[in-house]
Amino acid sequence: MPPPHPHLLLVRSQTLTPLLRRSPRCDPPFFRPRRFLSARASGAQLAAAGVATTQQPELGVEEAVVGFVTGKRKATEVAHAVWRSIVRKGDTVVDATCGNGNDTLALLKMVADEKGQGRVYGMDIQDSAIESTSSFLKMAMDDDHQGELVKLFPICHSRMEEIVPKDAPVRLVAFNLGYLPGGDKTLITVPRTTELALQAASRILSSGGIISVLVYIGHPGGRDELDVVESFASSLPIDSWVSCKLQMVNRPIAPVLILLNKK
Amino acid sequence: MPPPHPHLLLVRSQTLTPLLRRSPRCDPPFFRPRRFLSARASGAQLAAAGVATTQQPELGVEEAVVGFVTGKRKATEVAHAVWRSIVRKGDTVVDATCGNGNDTLALLKMVADEKGQGRVYGMDIQDSAIESTSSFLKMAMDDDHQGELVKLFPICHSRMEEIVPKDAPVRLVAFNLGYLPGGDKTLITVPRTTELALQAASRILSSGGIISVLVYIGHPGGRDELDVVESFASSLPIDSWVSCKLQMVNRPIAPVLILLNKK
Repeated sequence: MPPPHPHLLLVRSQTLTPLLRRSPRCDPPFFRPRRFLSARASGAQLAAAGVATTQQPELGVEEAVVGFVTGKRKATEVAHAVWRSIVRKGDTVVDATCGNGNDTLALLKMVADEKGQGRVYGMDIQDSAIESTSSFLKMAMDDDHQGELVKLFPICHSRMEEIVPKDAPVRLVAFNLGYLPGGDKTLITVPRTTELALQAASRILSSGGIISVLVYIGHPGGRDELDVVESFASSLPIDSWVSCKLQMVNRPIAPVLILLNKK
Repeated sequence: MPPPHPHLLLVRSQTLTPLLRRSPRCDPPFFRPRRFLSARASGAQLAAAGVATTQQPELGVEEAVVGFVTGKRKATEVAHAVWRSIVRKGDTVVDATCGNGNDTLALLKMVADEKGQGRVYGMDIQDSAIESTSSFLKMAMDDDHQGELVKLFPICHSRMEEIVPKDAPVRLVAFNLGYLPGGDKTLITVPRTTELALQAASRILSSGGIISVLVYIGHPGGRDELDVVESFASSLPIDSWVSCKLQMVNRPIAPVLILLNKK
């Protein structure tokens, strides 16, 4: 399988992910086996995915947050930096909106361990997003062995409980809400299934874990989805959840980061 | 002068500051000369003010932000950590709402330099707040020489341009909006003068500097003031300002942190 056009990968890092529930019915869970090719992602592609390289070391929370405050870093970089502070090698994590695979790869780097215990469960309702993620991972992984740690499913994320093993404590569930970069912009995540997916995420998350939701609001329907996420976040009981929000104030269509920590 | 009751200092760190514009007229600028006594603040008092001690080292942005996200740190700790990343020794900074002096002391520690160039201009409309700040600083300063770097004025913060020298590039203007902890809770900052003060702060701030506004919204009038701050923040042009907001979502009366960076 040829590597995806590099431009797609770069666009992906600046924006978001896919998902329109074209139909309430989703395909059955499906693990797509992958054979890893020798093609490797370039440093620029990895940097665009927020993955550390020799030339660009890992971004810390301080650099990401102060960079965000001063307009030099994006919300997605803050999200990744916070994830790195919370996720540990060997953890189980979920990428609820694979898109072109940037978050999936970033999560894989965080959980991949020598014992092979770490797991990334990735899903996307659009087949093309799963294909794109699979191709990107093939290029970007340090060794083929890491591929065994990623499980990709072309299903609606409201069904995440069907694919994540019940005995796996989940440290992180990541959402990027909007449309697939480089894909059909009329295919967007929608409030009803997003709400169901958030509820599912809140059930599978382990104590101390985080649900991370980056909401892109610059497209039609984006504000409605933000309303749903905020409503869900504010409904969480304060004795067992911490819900916070980081957003730009003078850039009304800038993405909003919402982080939900289960105590 | 006896040191203030320790309880006041502890309460102060968890809450906010003073300011009611009882009258549109403010007293003329006034520098209150101080003689520094030998009484010293305890480690607990300094910790409550967010100032590093031998027992409690300085809080970094990573620890503050991840702590905020997981419910272990307060918005004021995030604010102080961000300030420390931006303010340098020798800088000029403004505490627009001295309250009981916790922020004033924290700012003094950030700018105090061997050359004696750093300056903290502090103000508060309530005389009792200036007295409290002055007493706290006397107890908490490492040496009396640092006192020369702090200028306290019992005036309305909308008049900050009258006391900060025009040739001093200001790196930070800090606001804590609400009432004076331990004081009369009916005396609160009010939208009209807060707006004027924000406008003044935006004029005196140097390029690369930050206006930091922590808005306490749990008291009557708190939401109106947040509206004014948000309206001001969102009106700033995106080519020369970055305005962002950090807030709890499932704790509706938790303070909101708004940071305005002048590019």
